[in-house]
Amino acid sequence: MAKETQFVEQIANIDENFPQWYTDVVLKTKLVDYGPVKGTMVIRPYGYAVWENIQKEMNARFHKRGVENAYFPLLIPMSYFTKEAEHVEGFAPEVAVVTHAGGEELAEPLAIRPTSETIIGTMMSKWVQSYRDLPLKINQWCNVMRWEKTTRPFLRTSEFLWQEGHTAHASEEEAKDETMAMLEIYKEFAENCLAIPVLTGRKTEKERFAGAVATYTMEAMMHDGKSLQAGTSHYLGQNFSTAFDIKYLGNEGVLQTAYTTSWGVSTRLIGAIIMTHGDERGLVFPPVVAPIQCVIVPIAARKPGVVEACEALKTQLENAGIRVTLDNSDNSPGWKFNEWEMKGVPVRIELGPRDIEAGKMLCARRDTLEKVEMPLESAVDGVKALLDSVQKGLLEKARKHRDERIVYADDIAGILAGVEAGNFVKAGWCGCRECEDKVKEETGATSRVFAEGESAETCAICGKKAEHVIVFARAY
Amino acid sequence: MAKETQFVEQIANIDENFPQWYTDVVLKTKLVDYGPVKGTMVIRPYGYAVWENIQKEMNARFHKRGVENAYFPLLIPMSYFTKEAEHVEGFAPEVAVVTHAGGEELAEPLAIRPTSETIIGTMMSKWVQSYRDLPLKINQWCNVMRWEKTTRPFLRTSEFLWQEGHTAHASEEEAKDETMAMLEIYKEFAENCLAIPVLTGRKTEKERFAGAVATYTMEAMMHDGKSLQAGTSHYLGQNFSTAFDIKYLGNEGVLQTAYTTSWGVSTRLIGAIIMTHGDERGLVFPPVVAPIQCVIVPIAARKPGVVEACEALKTQLENAGIRVTLDNSDNSPGWKFNEWEMKGVPVRIELGPRDIEAGKMLCARRDTLEKVEMPLESAVDGVKALLDSVQKGLLEKARKHRDERIVYADDIAGILAGVEAGNFVKAGWCGCRECEDKVKEETGATSRVFAEGESAETCAICGKKAEHVIVFARAY
Repeated sequence: MAKETQFVEQIANIDENFPQWYTDVVLKTKLVDYGPVKGTMVIRPYGYAVWENIQKEMNARFHKRGVENAYFPLLIPMSYFTKEAEHVEGFAPEVAVVTHAGGEELAEPLAIRPTSETIIGTMMSKWVQSYRDLPLKINQWCNVMRWEKTTRPFLRTSEFLWQEGHTAHASEEEAKDETMAMLEIYKEFAENCLAIPVLTGRKTEKERFAGAVATYTMEAMMHDGKSLQAGTSHYLGQNFSTAFDIKYLGNEGVLQTAYTTSWGVSTRLIGAIIMTHGDERGLVFPPVVAPIQCVIVPIAARKPGVVEACEALKTQLENAGIRVTLDNSDNSPGWKFNEWEMKGVPVRIELGPRDIEAGKMLCARRDTLEKVEMPLESAVDGVKALLDSVQKGLLEKARKHRDERIVYADDIAGILAGVEAGNFVKAGWCGCRECEDKVKEETGATSRVFAEGESAETCAICGKKAEHVIVFARAY
Repeated sequence: MAKETQFVEQIANIDENFPQWYTDVVLKTKLVDYGPVKGTMVIRPYGYAVWENIQKEMNARFHKRGVENAYFPLLIPMSYFTKEAEHVEGFAPEVAVVTHAGGEELAEPLAIRPTSETIIGTMMSKWVQSYRDLPLKINQWCNVMRWEKTTRPFLRTSEFLWQEGHTAHASEEEAKDETMAMLEIYKEFAENCLAIPVLTGRKTEKERFAGAVATYTMEAMMHDGKSLQAGTSHYLGQNFSTAFDIKYLGNEGVLQTAYTTSWGVSTRLIGAIIMTHGDERGLVFPPVVAPIQCVIVPIAARKPGVVEACEALKTQLENAGIRVTLDNSDNSPGWKFNEWEMKGVPVRIELGPRDIEAGKMLCARRDTLEKVEMPLESAVDGVKALLDSVQKGLLEKARKHRDERIVYADDIAGILAGVEAGNFVKAGWCGCRECEDKVKEETGATSRVFAEGESAETCAICGKKAEHVIVFARAY
């Protein structure tokens, strides 16, 4: 094997040094690279393919709900942000500002969008005239920019890709329903496409989106027990419609103010996939969004008929809509196994002269590393069933991992011990900001989401009467 | 018809005032709207759907050629532009610059990408090490910004959406082949998907992309006889690979410099569709990229069974993959006909009680306005055949329009007369910049593309020996 000049690169141990494992894995599998400007990332083809699969699945769901895609400008006049007081306070500190263009200084500085409520609100006020124009449901896939001090690929970067949905409605009730319906879509998507179980519910006032009446979140538990906010849906009430004058003539001829919502998920989801399913060998992709679902590795490739059989199998799987690749490189099978395991391909097929003779193939699933023999003649059905099983298996495994790590605490020491041990900690809370801040200071955990439907006697922080149960966790 | 409160809006006469017709049509059909910052546009759902269809068709073609999608950062350090002398000269004057971010002034100003050769070149130099890493073929769909003084929706806006492909190769020959292959793909796409015939070939040095060795273009003739540069493919030689150090170890162990290409099409294509096929009634969409391919208008909708039959037909067409809508609004059929004609839907189906009884439907094609009766039971095949016929008919019509307007001139007065009359004018050219500039000054026409394979005796401008035949035209 003289040509085997490279070796599968080592990655840090996932349990000993999870942050280093993450960095190793995202770089070495070529998902992403660092951009030249601090805090920026280049999404490489293997990573971008995941994003395209996410887009496809999301678009189908949006379409069903009557949401249409559009595109709004990148640059927003700074003065727009000041129209909604809380919004400007929240976003102004992280905005990137264009001051010069076309060789001249601009009369008004322009912000690169950190989110588009202000510019979409401006356009909606023009488009919404009558109750017949409502509901208005628009989504855009775009880049946004938030200048962050500490950055990590996919998880927190100054520029990232996302979708932001914006809807306007005639009634409060309808807008609230939309907010919750989108949260539900996100949850179903996270579970069925990404195999990531999520806790959904409302955020505290402190953690709320700047300008929202209420923010709803989905929180996922990563391998290390930390939480990742994987998507949010905001009920904006009349905050933005008042600031941006989104008014309509009702069917009784009276001018009324609309109610709006916004909701988004971003390329963070790719980070969530990596940190939920990855293991000591590297990435593990859920089949629905895997860039490559199945890799064929020829065994004794120089023997007559092997490459031909592999190519025929590839064509067959491809025609059935399976994203398949054939590794015809000069590397040894063992090297290939390691590489494709690191790259997280859900199913690997090994095919050699003896398999071909026996009309069989050997399939290895990435999640459990189990190998099963399957008849070649029903390869399509076999691989499909295996992909399906991996998809379900990953969700179950992640759910088990998460459920075992949800604990209760009734004092701040318990919260600290819980999060130190890599848990989500549920605890009673009086509802005051001081207690919420104290948890952050003393444990490094933040309130992730209300544990709706649960109740506690006393606040774990101050001992007064508890109004809510909160899920506390350290978070990305 | 008490509820028919709106009327189909008037649009300017296409032959009397084409610029006003264009503005009326793009705004009134809700393809686009003006953004708040001068020179920006909002692409509304009806316009964005065209872009999504373009993306889908293009992606399939790129995939076949082994091009992979990725995403590179928006912001590029200003210093990167200076690495390729011609490039910075060409783009610096139109760049938008970020000077502040996160509440602080930046140490180095950052450009919003006007194009990404510099940043992609930087990354390629990191990724390309050995001849085994070549060819490297990457594409990105993104927003870019070029600060323009005079803007028009889709045609010239400070921000626009595009795809930019970038490839690196081991040899000059391979890079040149790639440049020409992409030009050929663009041409095939323009003709088969957009029904726009194009002239393809090389640009003069004056019109070349800043930093390229050679720029190849496809030029389309609009309704008014002006040309629109609809896509370009650049052979960059070693200009960028030298500036950005894209070097590889050849299979004989010698370090060599790669050869690169880049190529792109943008949301301008939507403008090209509008100005190629539109008529006095408004838009005419080629079916392949039409947001809606077929609209069903119920006749005597209150009669029993009509709405049900229309809905059944809609479902049937939808299941066959046809993009269909049913207009159930309270407006009169006549109003609906006008509106959907203005919106350019290729096929309209009228379905009323008598049709249903007779098992027929009436289909009107948007391009010729002809109506044909078709049996309801073979609706899917009938509509598909009609869409196919519209697609082909539009290309033929556009080709005829264009071919009738290609004329020859042998002096500058002839060029002026030709372009004044709305023609592409072919003329001999000595090859010197002075003559090219003179045509621009005296006729308003620019050199669009070399008429490859054609020859002339003398230069139409100076009378010296002609080296080339050039297609001159006024252009968007």
